[in-house]
Formats: sequence, C-alpha cells, structure tokens
Amino acid sequence: MKRKTKGGIPPERDVRERLIEVATGLFANKGYATATTREIVCAAGVTKPVLYYYFRSKEGIYLEIMEKSYKRFESVVGEAASVSGDVIERLLYLCDKAFELVLEKIDVVRIMYSIYYGPPQGAPFFDFDGVHQKLYEAIGQIVIEGIKKKELKEANPEDMTWAILGAFHMAMENELSHPERELGREGLRRILTLIFGGISRQTGRRGKGETK
Amino acid sequence: MKRKTKGGIPPERDVRERLIEVATGLFANKGYATATTREIVCAAGVTKPVLYYYFRSKEGIYLEIMEKSYKRFESVVGEAASVSGDVIERLLYLCDKAFELVLEKIDVVRIMYSIYYGPPQGAPFFDFDGVHQKLYEAIGQIVIEGIKKKELKEANPEDMTWAILGAFHMAMENELSHPERELGREGLRRILTLIFGGISRQTGRRGKGETK
Repeated sequence: MKRKTKGGIPPERDVRERLIEVATGLFANKGYATATTREIVCAAGVTKPVLYYYFRSKEGIYLEIMEKSYKRFESVVGEAASVSGDVIERLLYLCDKAFELVLEKIDVVRIMYSIYYGPPQGAPFFDFDGVHQKLYEAIGQIVIEGIKKKELKEANPEDMTWAILGAFHMAMENELSHPERELGREGLRRILTLIFGGISRQTGRRGKGETK
Repeated sequence: MKRKTKGGIPPERDVRERLIEVATGLFANKGYATATTREIVCAAGVTKPVLYYYFRSKEGIYLEIMEKSYKRFESVVGEAASVSGDVIERLLYLCDKAFELVLEKIDVVRIMYSIYYGPPQGAPFFDFDGVHQKLYEAIGQIVIEGIKKKELKEANPEDMTWAILGAFHMAMENELSHPERELGREGLRRILTLIFGGISRQTGRRGKGETK
C-alpha cells in the first residue's frame, strides 16, 4: 500500500497520510521509543517542520495513529453489531468484521501489543483497555440477547463472551506472530463455529438444526 | 514470597535463588533492557561479582530464569498430559495444571509477553514459540485421541486445539493485565466447559450425558 510521490510538491493530504503510514511501520518494527522523528521524516521524504506542522511531535503522530484506528474500529464494531438476524450469524459477522480490520491494520495492532505488553516506552497514554472493552461489550450484548431469545444456552454471558473473545485473540495473535499459519478469517470462523456447536460429542449432540 | 536473610552469610542456594527472584521482578516491571546488573545486585543485597559468579552476566540470569521455568512447564505439561481417563476431564486437568503454573510464575509470563510482543530489547534468544508449541501439542494429542475414541466430534483437531488454547490465553492475559477480574482457574474451567458443550442451543442440545 506504499504510495509513490508523482513528482513536484505532493498534495497536503498525501503528505499527512504518508507520515502516518511511515510512522506506523517504524513504530511497529523498531518500537515506539527507538523510532525517531528524524527517521520518520526521512522515510517520508519530508523535513521535520512538516511533521511538527501536522502532528506537533512524535507523541502527536502516535496518538493520531491510535485515535484514527480506534475510530475505525468503533464504527466497524458499531455497524456490525447492529445488523439483525440469527444471533449465531450475528456473532460470526461481528467477529469477522472486527478481524477484517485487524488484518488491514495489523501494524497498528502490533504497536498496541508492543506498548501494552512491552516495557515502558514513554508513549503517551492511550486507553487500550477501552478498545478491548468495545468489542467485549458488543459481543456481550448479542450474547445476552441470544440467551433471552433462547438461541444460546442459559449460561454465564461473561464466560460465553470470553470464549468467543479467546478465539478472536488467538486468531489475532497468530496473525501477529505466525501469519504463515494462515489461520485468517476462515480459521476464525471455523473455530467460532466449533465453540458455538461444542467440541464434545456427549453434550454437543448433533441436533437437527446444526449450524452451517 | 520474599525471603529474609537471617543475618550472617546467607547459604549459597539462598543467594542464587534470591538473585533469580529479584531479577525476575525487575525484568517484569522495568523491562529487560532497563533493569541493570547494578539494580539486581543492589536489590538482592550482594555485590556484582556474586552475580557474575553464578550467572556470568545479565543475559545469563535471564536465560536461567527462562530455562528453569520452561523445564517446570515441560514437566507439568508432560505429567498432566499423561493421566488417564475421560478426554474432556483430561483436557480440563491439563489446562488447569498449566494455568496453575502460569499463576505461580506470572512475572515470568510477563517477561515473556514483554520480550515476545515488545520492541527489541537486546535479550538473548529464547524459544518462546517452543513453549507455546509444547502446550499446543499436548492438547492436540488428547484432542486427536478424543476424536478417535468418539468422545469428541469429528472436526479439524487443529481448530479444536485453537479453541481450547484461546480460552487458555484469554485467562492468562486477564491474569497479566486484569487480575482484579478474578477469572482465575475456576473461570478457565467454566469457559472450557462451555466450549466443550457448546454455546448454541440449536447444536449443543442438552444430551443425557452432560459434562459435569
């Protein structure tokens, strides 16, 4: 997805986006603390004042990356959570849409994991728990609805939400560290379908209405 | 679990273990790169040559922490995987035993996540994927056996293993970042039981032989 400057002065929007793209790659690969403003502007082919003009600082460009991605995530999750239909299909759809965004923004996810689990790196505060909470609540809402409508079993909705999120995280972490396994969206769908239907033969008796 | 020196020259084993304990805490909280040899020896109440004598270097003490924990993990997983009985109970037991060790060694898990997902920190190579693989294979073996014995449904054993590992990781990550949620061993058992029996009412018909 690298853009090429077509010669001459690039349009304003292009410069801004190129800075974001380049900074995302550097933060993801070298780490937030190690990536310098100089490296970012060099790689983007601009001078420091250009970065300062748009983002004020390295902190500024970092927060912009996070907020921009969070807004996308929020709207994708919001939209996907509001479709109607069968609860199982809705849960599959929501997880797929959220995971599609994870794949698109894998470098941003990499930065999040690095800041969240890594050592203190001097990055300004960003509410990563809030991002997680967004998906947790969207799934939880549908789960509660599913229990009420008797489409899901009567069990602790929080535990059900964790089971679903576990599959989501597993797929995300495979994508971060082992993309060659190619679990991907199809894999996540298969794992979720297993969780919905059950793994055990004893309890998970094959009923008439087996999920596709 | 802090030991107190009882005055006088502490026995050799105590010094070695105290150094490991102190270094684990510092690596977990400050990060590997930032924690210095000086801090480690200060906190352990010894001089630098004592650390060099036992571990040669910061790299040495780090590798010792990882290898020691890995050996414990290997033996816990090996033992737990070799018990006999019903496949579902065996999977629950294996995950519980591995998770019990995670709780006991949460600071080592924290270091692992920090090195694995964090920026490059100059730590010597340790095969974290191998640790993950150990549990993956142990679960996978039992799953394959369960399918053969018709205790588990006929489905992709890898997907089943990911579903189980997803719950395990979810519980581990809650413990790392949100111990106040107190998901714990009981929570993991509940989530796994849900995954075995299924969440959906349609497929996961309550059979006679419902898992306890």
